[in-house]
Amino acid sequence: MSTPPTVPQVGTLPPGKRGAITDVQGVKVGHCTLASGPCQTGVTVILPHGGNWFQDKMPAAVTILNGFGKSVGLVQVQELGVLETPIALTNTFSVGAVAQAQIRQAIAANPAIGRGEPTLNPLVLECNDGYLNDIQAMEVAEQHYRAASEAASSQVDQGAVGAGRGMSCFGFKGGIGTSSRTTRLADGRAFTVGLLVLANFGVPGMLTVAGRPLDLRPPETLSGSGAECPSEKGSIIMVMATDAPLDARQLRRLSLRAGAGLARTGSFFGHGSGDISLAFSTACTIPQTADRPMPALAVLHETLLDPLFRAAAESTEQAILNALWHAETVVGREGHCRHGLRALLQSKS
Amino acid sequence: MSTPPTVPQVGTLPPGKRGAITDVQGVKVGHCTLASGPCQTGVTVILPHGGNWFQDKMPAAVTILNGFGKSVGLVQVQELGVLETPIALTNTFSVGAVAQAQIRQAIAANPAIGRGEPTLNPLVLECNDGYLNDIQAMEVAEQHYRAASEAASSQVDQGAVGAGRGMSCFGFKGGIGTSSRTTRLADGRAFTVGLLVLANFGVPGMLTVAGRPLDLRPPETLSGSGAECPSEKGSIIMVMATDAPLDARQLRRLSLRAGAGLARTGSFFGHGSGDISLAFSTACTIPQTADRPMPALAVLHETLLDPLFRAAAESTEQAILNALWHAETVVGREGHCRHGLRALLQSKS
Amino acid sequence: MSTPPTVPQVGTLPPGKRGAITDVQGVKVGHCTLASGPCQTGVTVILPHGGNWFQDKMPAAVTILNGFGKSVGLVQVQELGVLETPIALTNTFSVGAVAQAQIRQAIAANPAIGRGEPTLNPLVLECNDGYLNDIQAMEVAEQHYRAASEAASSQVDQGAVGAGRGMSCFGFKGGIGTSSRTTRLADGRAFTVGLLVLANFGVPGMLTVAGRPLDLRPPETLSGSGAECPSEKGSIIMVMATDAPLDARQLRRLSLRAGAGLARTGSFFGHGSGDISLAFSTACTIPQTADRPMPALAVLHETLLDPLFRAAAESTEQAILNALWHAETVVGREGHCRHGLRALLQSKS
Amino acid sequence: MSTPPTVPQVGTLPPGKRGAITDVQGVKVGHCTLASGPCQTGVTVILPHGGNWFQDKMPAAVTILNGFGKSVGLVQVQELGVLETPIALTNTFSVGAVAQAQIRQAIAANPAIGRGEPTLNPLVLECNDGYLNDIQAMEVAEQHYRAASEAASSQVDQGAVGAGRGMSCFGFKGGIGTSSRTTRLADGRAFTVGLLVLANFGVPGMLTVAGRPLDLRPPETLSGSGAECPSEKGSIIMVMATDAPLDARQLRRLSLRAGAGLARTGSFFGHGSGDISLAFSTACTIPQTADRPMPALAVLHETLLDPLFRAAAESTEQAILNALWHAETVVGREGHCRHGLRALLQSKS
Repeated sequence: MSTPPTVPQVGTLPPGKRGAITDVQGVKVGHCTLASGPCQTGVTVILPHGGNWFQDKMPAAVTILNGFGKSVGLVQVQELGVLETPIALTNTFSVGAVAQAQIRQAIAANPAIGRGEPTLNPLVLECNDGYLNDIQAMEVAEQHYRAASEAASSQVDQGAVGAGRGMSCFGFKGGIGTSSRTTRLADGRAFTVGLLVLANFGVPGMLTVAGRPLDLRPPETLSGSGAECPSEKGSIIMVMATDAPLDARQLRRLSLRAGAGLARTGSFFGHGSGDISLAFSTACTIPQTADRPMPALAVLHETLLDPLFRAAAESTEQAILNALWHAETVVGREGHCRHGLRALLQSKS
Repeated sequence: MSTPPTVPQVGTLPPGKRGAITDVQGVKVGHCTLASGPCQTGVTVILPHGGNWFQDKMPAAVTILNGFGKSVGLVQVQELGVLETPIALTNTFSVGAVAQAQIRQAIAANPAIGRGEPTLNPLVLECNDGYLNDIQAMEVAEQHYRAASEAASSQVDQGAVGAGRGMSCFGFKGGIGTSSRTTRLADGRAFTVGLLVLANFGVPGMLTVAGRPLDLRPPETLSGSGAECPSEKGSIIMVMATDAPLDARQLRRLSLRAGAGLARTGSFFGHGSGDISLAFSTACTIPQTADRPMPALAVLHETLLDPLFRAAAESTEQAILNALWHAETVVGREGHCRHGLRALLQSKS
Repeated sequence: MSTPPTVPQVGTLPPGKRGAITDVQGVKVGHCTLASGPCQTGVTVILPHGGNWFQDKMPAAVTILNGFGKSVGLVQVQELGVLETPIALTNTFSVGAVAQAQIRQAIAANPAIGRGEPTLNPLVLECNDGYLNDIQAMEVAEQHYRAASEAASSQVDQGAVGAGRGMSCFGFKGGIGTSSRTTRLADGRAFTVGLLVLANFGVPGMLTVAGRPLDLRPPETLSGSGAECPSEKGSIIMVMATDAPLDARQLRRLSLRAGAGLARTGSFFGHGSGDISLAFSTACTIPQTADRPMPALAVLHETLLDPLFRAAAESTEQAILNALWHAETVVGREGHCRHGLRALLQSKS
Repeated sequence: MSTPPTVPQVGTLPPGKRGAITDVQGVKVGHCTLASGPCQTGVTVILPHGGNWFQDKMPAAVTILNGFGKSVGLVQVQELGVLETPIALTNTFSVGAVAQAQIRQAIAANPAIGRGEPTLNPLVLECNDGYLNDIQAMEVAEQHYRAASEAASSQVDQGAVGAGRGMSCFGFKGGIGTSSRTTRLADGRAFTVGLLVLANFGVPGMLTVAGRPLDLRPPETLSGSGAECPSEKGSIIMVMATDAPLDARQLRRLSLRAGAGLARTGSFFGHGSGDISLAFSTACTIPQTADRPMPALAVLHETLLDPLFRAAAESTEQAILNALWHAETVVGREGHCRHGLRALLQSKS
């Protein structure tokens, strides 16, 4: 019996200690996985820091490569340039439930929200896991968001977990992947870029691994029944964290570079794939009220951004491969099956 | 006793028959109002046509004048240029519940959604009614969206009804207002622009009526307790319908012109006001699947748009005034009160 | 004989000392006017500071209310959030010549541009003065840009001067107008917003002055020959300076609020009018190279922006009225005439 | 002596007859090359059709992946969704001269421009060829634009020609590349996507050819003098033509997909690279005046776009490789040299 194939490494920048988004200090990730018969779904939560997110907001920005998606909260992030909640990931039809959960979580910590203080901007990003999961059942409830939040740690499980439970990628089993890259700028300072993807995209047969078309097709797409496979369905959510001092304009630029990594895995930003990237910085926080002082932050000089842009591209490509390699085979709704890539590679070798 | 003051009429273009968004043929509006003690809120639904909205989508576009808002569904409208649901309005913390209701409504009519067919893009726009309404209670449920949908007709109630129940405007009672303007293009064709606003914006003391500052301040802001009033809070949602044949690019241009009408009422697009405008056309529908033919529509020549742009500005200003003049005094959470402007004007005269 | 009518004052915020964009410290404005027969045009230059603009860039942002315009340099301002040249205004067909002049001016001060250092982003905004000016003649040359730059001072001439020489506004003579408003934030700090407009927009008969339709029509539009007048032609460029510490994202928000002032003068952002607003801050500069330290600036807290937004709206409206009131009658190409509004008002009274 | 290495072919879609943008019927391309000592630059013109471009505009749209660029005309294309001139490419400091040439060309064919008719929107895209070319000399004049226009044909020269004369790519000689891909939609109709790039981007050492890092570095970057090379400098302009019936919103979506092809060659959309993509459709034209009828065009159903998106990605990657393989070694300003990749490969083999 052969040993399990290791995940191919892409790019040239060194990863951080964990090879995960949590290499950016203070960031934690938690999952809540629902896996029972036709219910194959879940929630993943990224905590940008360990404090009160509403009181201490984080600079953030968004790139919408393809807006065929139902994520909520992006409009306000684009306008105000800050996060004020954790970043939640789930299936398309559970966005509402998770958003409500975020509101209640924030009110519990900040009772004046919606009274003396403004309302909250929930931030929930999604993909459609309807092939494996009975998405119409809307099984995700507020408690699952809370469970994912409470489970958050710097150790990140990957593959068919959390929001990734029912996701597909290039016809294989997809899901959660994470990675990181460290960079050293021309002025000597070192920064980390960490990525977490919810990978649910890709036309079967088009997966490219480290530049090479994968010589392996998903079994489902080989038979005559492959009618559902030829076109791009699904989506990808790419969440990026960095400790570099960047403002919202710079973070928008950074978030766009995730698209370069995505393209290198074989995506052409298909019509049906909501390809959305969100980046945030942990270098400072923005207070909720003007009573507290604003940070006097010297952001990075624009000409120093290239190493971070490169890290964004590399770590996105890596996180997608990590999702594919870690995802185990899942059988869900109506016997639908997505094979884990690693198992297929192992059986082939 | 004096007769009730009539609503000032602005602009020079003639209104349609009803002076309402429903002057655009096929459009209907329904409300569900919750008015009980601290619960002063509701749902308003705009039905773009009487058929199956998912199967027969309508060209649409969005302008986000100020993205401090929590509406959902806008990202996909921006990308794909179509509506596939009714347009729902409610309070900020009920967006999730109403979105779930839209999903269930669509699945009921299209059982393959999320299975053989793609998922649905809920479209829920919101303002914060937390001054009058106990927004933390999240009293709006799926049944209220259904009730509003079922109540839809071409007769539109205005003021403190539906989603407008708990809204404020320039320190007075705000809420739902509607209006229309008819235009005749240089080539002789006649079209209608209909507007519906959910008006919840405006710094007290800055209301401008037909160009003149209103010589009347909200009673609450005259006392020393006016601490909450000086800055812009709230939001405005402006929904525009037209029967003119416009594509999504042109509809985006049209939707922007709502901002001109908004500014003339005294708004400067305040930081805290999510000022969002959405426009759709009833001139054709776009089929869900490629099996059915696409409409071969000759859109309006760009140089013919000015009358429509003017109609958009005039009808927005008019709809805001209509909301103010129709709204009755409401007492809600913790005895908070917003006076109806008409009653104040009557008592003053 | 009656005394000249004074310019109506709008809004409630107090103007700065000069009532001009140069109330923002360090900002200067210069004109070069070409007025000879069918050549009625010119160049206006706004100097953001007195140093080397390429080496010391200024935070800036743009709002394109209506992109029917030929201005150059906006794309890079949107991406990088800085100015690196003065802001030049001229007629539509002279943009190329003025851009070349800016490049030569920058190379003269920075010989490494386009060699060891990057190229320059010229920033030239324009309106079409083709009714009064023989725009096809392209009479503006590089020397006129230089002359305008050299003439820059804190004293700003208004009306039919510089780039405003041949412009029209609501069928009257338009051109250059400037204004300022001072604001005091909730935290006690005081800031100035200064505006300069190149006003060349407006449908004859729709001018609104301080909320009232002006009871005076341009003589040309009363006769039967008014065929050219009914639709919106022209454009408006609105340039805003402030000493408030704002980043590019906030400056974009600020620049949008010029639209509120514009709408109050009677504009509905007509199809044919390139309505563009640009805002910059003098609170800090951004060095060209990473060798020099980035400013550690505490930007304004977002909730403090409303007084600046209000100042932006008020000062835009005021600057447009100033342009109209200061512009003298000009006769140009083929005997075309635009009457100065003040002269008409005086003869009427 | 070895035979010249052929250009690697990427992707799976078949090219058109010529493998050039001119496979889209009616499109022609012309070059004017200036190659003399330190002057190594030029102009390339893409003619969208053979008629009067101002009277018969073409649907078009733009994606600005990275707005560090000085192209002109993009703002109006974004607003109005049409081209009204040929697409001109040149060096950064010649944009003004070429724009003037476009204006004169349009006036010659349409004498009422800027008089009875509106002004013209010049469309000139650029890259910085300052390494090989003495860009400060501004040698490109109006006659060179005219010469390129007059030279236009369906046969497209590639490499160090026209605007591509002085461009660099990954430290090698870059310039003009073109390609095409043909697609067959699910409904049986066949369409072509044609690409032309002005390739002047890429960090030396990062070129990826058909998924593999090229095992060959530019000679200049091997020595210690490589100080100028490590960061991304330059830009890429990607122009896409298609005969598919698409509106401006769909063309914007299509233009974005060029980014996927760009990323696959090793780009991460570096800070200093103005990465801009423009797409136009030849399926219909839009008349200048409302006197003529608008086309009643059935645009493609959105779910049929994937083959076109894929063609956009593949043909962009291919066009970049074509530029690299066709470009011959050029020695220019101060003896600066960029080696043609094919010659290096040949000498190595």
